[in-house]
Amino acid sequence: MNKQKSSRVSWTLADIAKKISAELRGDGSVCITGLATLANAREGQISFLANKTYQQHLSGTRASAVLVNKDCLADCQTNALVCSDPYLAYAALSHVFNQAPVQDAGVHPSAFVHPSAELAEGVSIGANAVVEQEVVLGSNVVIGPGSVVEGFVEIGRDSVLHPNVTIYHHVKIGERVNIHSASVIGGDGFGFAIHKGSWNKIAQLGSVTIGNDVEVGASSTIDRGALDDTIIGNGVIIDNQVQLAHNVHIGDHTAIAGCVGIAGSTTVGKNCTIAGAAGLAGHISVCDGVHIGMQAQVTKSISKPGAYASGTGLMTADSWRRNVARIRQLNEFYRRFVKLERKK
Amino acid sequence: MNKQKSSRVSWTLADIAKKISAELRGDGSVCITGLATLANAREGQISFLANKTYQQHLSGTRASAVLVNKDCLADCQTNALVCSDPYLAYAALSHVFNQAPVQDAGVHPSAFVHPSAELAEGVSIGANAVVEQEVVLGSNVVIGPGSVVEGFVEIGRDSVLHPNVTIYHHVKIGERVNIHSASVIGGDGFGFAIHKGSWNKIAQLGSVTIGNDVEVGASSTIDRGALDDTIIGNGVIIDNQVQLAHNVHIGDHTAIAGCVGIAGSTTVGKNCTIAGAAGLAGHISVCDGVHIGMQAQVTKSISKPGAYASGTGLMTADSWRRNVARIRQLNEFYRRFVKLERKK
Amino acid sequence: MNKQKSSRVSWTLADIAKKISAELRGDGSVCITGLATLANAREGQISFLANKTYQQHLSGTRASAVLVNKDCLADCQTNALVCSDPYLAYAALSHVFNQAPVQDAGVHPSAFVHPSAELAEGVSIGANAVVEQEVVLGSNVVIGPGSVVEGFVEIGRDSVLHPNVTIYHHVKIGERVNIHSASVIGGDGFGFAIHKGSWNKIAQLGSVTIGNDVEVGASSTIDRGALDDTIIGNGVIIDNQVQLAHNVHIGDHTAIAGCVGIAGSTTVGKNCTIAGAAGLAGHISVCDGVHIGMQAQVTKSISKPGAYASGTGLMTADSWRRNVARIRQLNEFYRRFVKLERKK
Repeated sequence: MNKQKSSRVSWTLADIAKKISAELRGDGSVCITGLATLANAREGQISFLANKTYQQHLSGTRASAVLVNKDCLADCQTNALVCSDPYLAYAALSHVFNQAPVQDAGVHPSAFVHPSAELAEGVSIGANAVVEQEVVLGSNVVIGPGSVVEGFVEIGRDSVLHPNVTIYHHVKIGERVNIHSASVIGGDGFGFAIHKGSWNKIAQLGSVTIGNDVEVGASSTIDRGALDDTIIGNGVIIDNQVQLAHNVHIGDHTAIAGCVGIAGSTTVGKNCTIAGAAGLAGHISVCDGVHIGMQAQVTKSISKPGAYASGTGLMTADSWRRNVARIRQLNEFYRRFVKLERKK
Repeated sequence: MNKQKSSRVSWTLADIAKKISAELRGDGSVCITGLATLANAREGQISFLANKTYQQHLSGTRASAVLVNKDCLADCQTNALVCSDPYLAYAALSHVFNQAPVQDAGVHPSAFVHPSAELAEGVSIGANAVVEQEVVLGSNVVIGPGSVVEGFVEIGRDSVLHPNVTIYHHVKIGERVNIHSASVIGGDGFGFAIHKGSWNKIAQLGSVTIGNDVEVGASSTIDRGALDDTIIGNGVIIDNQVQLAHNVHIGDHTAIAGCVGIAGSTTVGKNCTIAGAAGLAGHISVCDGVHIGMQAQVTKSISKPGAYASGTGLMTADSWRRNVARIRQLNEFYRRFVKLERKK
Repeated sequence: MNKQKSSRVSWTLADIAKKISAELRGDGSVCITGLATLANAREGQISFLANKTYQQHLSGTRASAVLVNKDCLADCQTNALVCSDPYLAYAALSHVFNQAPVQDAGVHPSAFVHPSAELAEGVSIGANAVVEQEVVLGSNVVIGPGSVVEGFVEIGRDSVLHPNVTIYHHVKIGERVNIHSASVIGGDGFGFAIHKGSWNKIAQLGSVTIGNDVEVGASSTIDRGALDDTIIGNGVIIDNQVQLAHNVHIGDHTAIAGCVGIAGSTTVGKNCTIAGAAGLAGHISVCDGVHIGMQAQVTKSISKPGAYASGTGLMTADSWRRNVARIRQLNEFYRRFVKLERKK
């Protein structure tokens, strides 16, 4: 059985102010039961103003309190918690009001745990989960229902596998790592040697090493390395449906949005952001501090920090049909232009 | 044990005509045992002509009967069922000849169902499935083998989760919803507040609400909302490997093809179609009746119904290499042109 | 319990030479315990030189032996195994040093196998796996933990389903096929008939047929056919997160990289390669020997072997913003140019 955190969380505003080290302006005794946007908040809820776009909603909000910075305090008609970064304060506060059920510690009777697995204190293994031989799970690790952890895997303390995750053998996962459902860590890299027109599979002898404080979204895949490991640094955040091929290296604190694909042996630096559905070719290197736009086509290494983008943008279908024909002839068109230019 | 529908389904043509309200032309006593394309049909099978492209196959088909509209009846050399929309008639008939095994009602002994879960009559829970606390399943709901339904989920009558689906806590799913394998509904939205170069996770307090008559393909992901819910309207159809981020809203009867990604807080109207691998940026709005082409790059809101597209089309690799260099210099090229134009 | 291959594999170099039919140059008695890259190899490991890019690492490598071709032998300072295709030799050798645990034969007590399923000798069914009615598994087939095989599926000898794979009913899979975790074979094709603005589901009556020696990566989806089968030829290799829609045909020995999507009824020939995230429209045909670049936009049939590509390449975000505006006006620009050209 799983514990449900109390369905009626309630704090005084003064308690919250203390919890997030914000300065209280107004009635500290007011009772706060939830978090909501400025536009949708009801009485008893706290909201936040983190983006100037939403400032119009501040004066009219029905929230019982609002997280604001100093500059916006004047427009706040209700109780305020003043803080330098209201979005960060909201992030902290979101965990207070999180009603997600928490899986009980212990091994569910329907789970299979190999006798040679080592489970530290507080570990929870969900229903019908499978933990194979010589697995080592740190304290408070949660393995969700239906998840499979193959042999010789190590998972650090306070990490969580949501339901139906698969971790292949020998993968190493750090502390406080969250992996969402249907994700697969350590599947075979796509390595084959062609011989007389046929593909000969290359056993993938490396593994995957994931650092601490990493998030992996749902249905993402991180392949094991061919010889050395695929490496995900500390504090990396990865969204859903992301594909990281064998021997990819992701630097610390890089963020990868949904549907991104990174081909084999490519290295991405620290503190990069990669927007949705961008594609990175294999065997290239992206330096620290690079921001890659949605659907970008990264075919070559990037050695200079900054923002990059690709794509034609959106057109009406009619306009697109006409323009796309010209794109295919662009070099020819350019040559005709140069000829004309020279005539002048 | 699962029931297999009889492996030899057989109907008279007259029965079929009645079943789909079509007008019978020919021998109503002929025995029909299956559905096939015009080109591949054998004796005893019924076919259909829904697309003029295939009209050439009509006269030579070996099908024992064909679904046709009035206009094509003259070319039909075999028994005909005349109807105004043969494709729609085929859709109806396809269910008659569907041989998919049906999972027996009841809870499989290897499944885990929390005692607080409410199962209406006719519910089926497959082998090694997991249903957590306070889940409410409407009548005839099918939970496939290996699927996991976390606590506090509600699923309406006649909905089906195929094997290995994951539904996170508190998600609400309507009636007659089909969700295919490896899909994940209600995983955490990708919300983080950056502070001194590190990502601080924002607990995702919203959930997902899915309407009635929705289809979700295999390996698709629909994230829970940050504060409010992610919302999928009635009659929405979603193909495989689709990613819908937190707080996305999809209007009724919109169709989303494979590999599409829609970023956070974006709203798509009713009766839209989004072709394969299109990408929609976050925080934008697409009005009703919009048709988005394959791999389209939707970076801005669309306020006018109609068809839209992106991309360069396909070129030979040689031609692409030459043209892509010019694309990157296009603005410069244009400026040179304007200069030349002005000289005239 | 699963067997772990000995964690200390060790061979003499002479043994290895014999095993892969290479010519030994040097000390055949040296003991080899692993495979590594030239740059990372330690004493006791064997390496290989398959790519001229890495030739610089040959002379300085600490490997105890290197797989080389005749041309590079002169630069090799350590023991050598001379072979015509070192990469192919490495592929063969990789299996010798593979430490992946092997699942024991037999049915795990927590698995559910329907009594009507036929299991040949050596079949292994992992923990909490599910095998439904009338399934036929050839000798030595491995069904990983948590995988679900629906009724009437046939899987040929020596095929492996990794954990949490789903195979829908009536799918036929050949011999020596590898399917990685979270992949789904035989889910419903995306077929709907629209009627008065609503989508009517078309039951997908076909299935999927997969040939011999096929690899399917993690989180890939291959839909069942609408009437006839979706067909994957022999020796086809498919990476992660690939989507193959209903009635797609893939020719023998074609390779499909990660994140590729192929829409319904499209045929791809033999010995093609499709790079990452390329998209193929539905109802088209690609001939044998075609190589499609990353993120390519294949909207029409290809009837000539060769290499093809799409996309704008990568630009700085500033440059992209300027160029993309011009792309959208390209046809207009071209017309202005033609006008100017004619004036001359």
